[in-house]
Amino acid sequence: MLPLGFKFSGITCGIKESSAPDLALISTSKPSVAAGVYTQNVVRAASIDWNRNLTPSDKFQAVVINSGNANACTGQQGIQDNERMANLTSQAIGASPAQVLVLSTGVIGHLLPMDKIETGIQASAKILGANQDDFEKASQAILTTDKSNKTTFGSLEIRGSQINIAGMAKGAGMIGPNMATMLAIMMTDAKISMANAQTILADAARQSFNRISVEGHTSTNDALLLICSGESNIEISSAEDLKQFSQVLTDSCIDLAKRIPSDGEGSTHLVAIEITGAKSESEADQAARTIAMSALVKTAITGADPNWGRIVSAAGYSGVEMKIEETDLSINGHVVFKNGQPIEFDAALISQSMSDNFETKIQLKIGSGPCHATHWTSDLTTEYVRFNSQYTT
Amino acid sequence: MLPLGFKFSGITCGIKESSAPDLALISTSKPSVAAGVYTQNVVRAASIDWNRNLTPSDKFQAVVINSGNANACTGQQGIQDNERMANLTSQAIGASPAQVLVLSTGVIGHLLPMDKIETGIQASAKILGANQDDFEKASQAILTTDKSNKTTFGSLEIRGSQINIAGMAKGAGMIGPNMATMLAIMMTDAKISMANAQTILADAARQSFNRISVEGHTSTNDALLLICSGESNIEISSAEDLKQFSQVLTDSCIDLAKRIPSDGEGSTHLVAIEITGAKSESEADQAARTIAMSALVKTAITGADPNWGRIVSAAGYSGVEMKIEETDLSINGHVVFKNGQPIEFDAALISQSMSDNFETKIQLKIGSGPCHATHWTSDLTTEYVRFNSQYTT
Repeated sequence: MLPLGFKFSGITCGIKESSAPDLALISTSKPSVAAGVYTQNVVRAASIDWNRNLTPSDKFQAVVINSGNANACTGQQGIQDNERMANLTSQAIGASPAQVLVLSTGVIGHLLPMDKIETGIQASAKILGANQDDFEKASQAILTTDKSNKTTFGSLEIRGSQINIAGMAKGAGMIGPNMATMLAIMMTDAKISMANAQTILADAARQSFNRISVEGHTSTNDALLLICSGESNIEISSAEDLKQFSQVLTDSCIDLAKRIPSDGEGSTHLVAIEITGAKSESEADQAARTIAMSALVKTAITGADPNWGRIVSAAGYSGVEMKIEETDLSINGHVVFKNGQPIEFDAALISQSMSDNFETKIQLKIGSGPCHATHWTSDLTTEYVRFNSQYTT
Repeated sequence: MLPLGFKFSGITCGIKESSAPDLALISTSKPSVAAGVYTQNVVRAASIDWNRNLTPSDKFQAVVINSGNANACTGQQGIQDNERMANLTSQAIGASPAQVLVLSTGVIGHLLPMDKIETGIQASAKILGANQDDFEKASQAILTTDKSNKTTFGSLEIRGSQINIAGMAKGAGMIGPNMATMLAIMMTDAKISMANAQTILADAARQSFNRISVEGHTSTNDALLLICSGESNIEISSAEDLKQFSQVLTDSCIDLAKRIPSDGEGSTHLVAIEITGAKSESEADQAARTIAMSALVKTAITGADPNWGRIVSAAGYSGVEMKIEETDLSINGHVVFKNGQPIEFDAALISQSMSDNFETKIQLKIGSGPCHATHWTSDLTTEYVRFNSQYTT
């Protein structure tokens, strides 16, 4: 079920040449709490700086999202255009510009077609609705090279009442989030303070969107928002409630985050890389990420090849503490390397399992430490290269 | 001209199924100085540990090199096999095992076929020669997926006498050196102390082999050796002579290093990425390396697309200090981004220049700092992906 207190719309305003939907609007029925985490890239879109100044907030009323143009590396004009998007939206819904967040995604270095966006924002505001169909349309309008829209729904019971969580995201290319992700918006009707919303969101991002990649290129526009309408009238403030909410939010974020590499450009496999036995969670994360970034690992998976040497050697240069004599590796549950020694395995059987399953599961123990982390990535295919060699500026 | 005091051989001993040459031997006429820098990967081949214990040395007599099998991740048996290669070579040339270095390159995780290697080492030692042809044969026998052999020759005059430098390398895949490279052997007839040889070599590696990549995967077997036979009888020990020698050695290393991404798996472009205006040389290096690692940048170059947004955004997440308002970018000499703003440019003209030239030159100024560095990489093609998806374990 959708959380209470939200309205949605998604339309085609003409930014994309393809006529695909490219403008989405999400509004709340009253001023709400909003938290955000954003790209760490020093080359940032105008929208990122705008949102960073305004979150966390307890006055949030709307977020306007355009796809097809990132409004990044567009200098002073880009900053003005971004501000104008907030102004136009605030006028259309009856709020102040500081109550409006802005998200943009698409090509870098082109000015926004502001005439089309102006008409689009006015049209979007008129058709805002609270139905599942409105939500789906908004989730369609934020996509770029994605093959399908990405949504998630979660709920939890607090003191006998139901709280709902819904989220939408876009991904596909330039995916290597650092403290944030591509565009994703999580929504709930729980009542949560600004400070708690920000803490919970950062924690969820660390375990979900910050653990996915396609090619590892950190975008200029990554943003993850959490909007809490409070319309359920259920207050989440005790440690126990916060923990319960945080767990469901994190699970929803992981569910949504995994859709991104699953639909990565040219992707034929989702690859889950689980590191165990690490000294710290951040070392587990770093080892998993390094394996995920290796073109040699990714192409081996494309070819359904249990090429464990590429995996073990990638962990070896990740910069984390690794005890080779305590290193074990399994692929799709089959052990291929044990205590730092090659062992006999049925390569044809494992290869068949990699061909048969969309998800390839890599489990690597790098020592006897207490910490673990999982990273999700896509494989690397000729289709990825073809697509990105032909995508023109 | 080849440096004095060296003999070479290269043969097929049967490690590779293809019958391509796979065993090389290089020996010196008397105990010589040898320095080495090696992979920083904690997952290392047995040969790396062997050589690390023995260099720098002033007793070097030979290095034996096999291709087709990396002898990495092979546990205790791998360590024994490596030691046996040194023993066999020392017997064949009349030296002690501690005077022999060992280099291996090829697939990870397979035991060496020691019977073939034993016969091969004995045969190699019998045909050692000092001619250009012998040198070429050795340089052929160290290759794996390389399309052509990689050699370089340099010389300098010290007090009216000529010193010669020659080098050979192999590359092609798993290229992302960290403080070392794939296999490369530099040879000279200069007389240089162990300590100076080690310092000069590390300095040359920093500016050459440590600034190249194909896909950025740091191998288990990277090694760069410098062997100084001293046969010219010219001593290089004054600061001035060391500086002059160091410059020629570095130039030779750069020449050889650039051949590796030029012949990178599936490569259709050599990409030179020059960063200027950086705060420090290491920041310039890091920004260049991050751009070189971006699949989005590499595929844009494959497609002859002057997609500057991918380049600027990669520098933006490299973690180095970057002043966007002082950032300029040119591609093959054409300015495409100036003072942090997009500018008009003739995309068709630049694209044509990228198609017409094997080398694509990216020059990015990231501020007004005093430091610069250049990194060389290959582009990313469907052929790379096809090759590495089909390369079986």
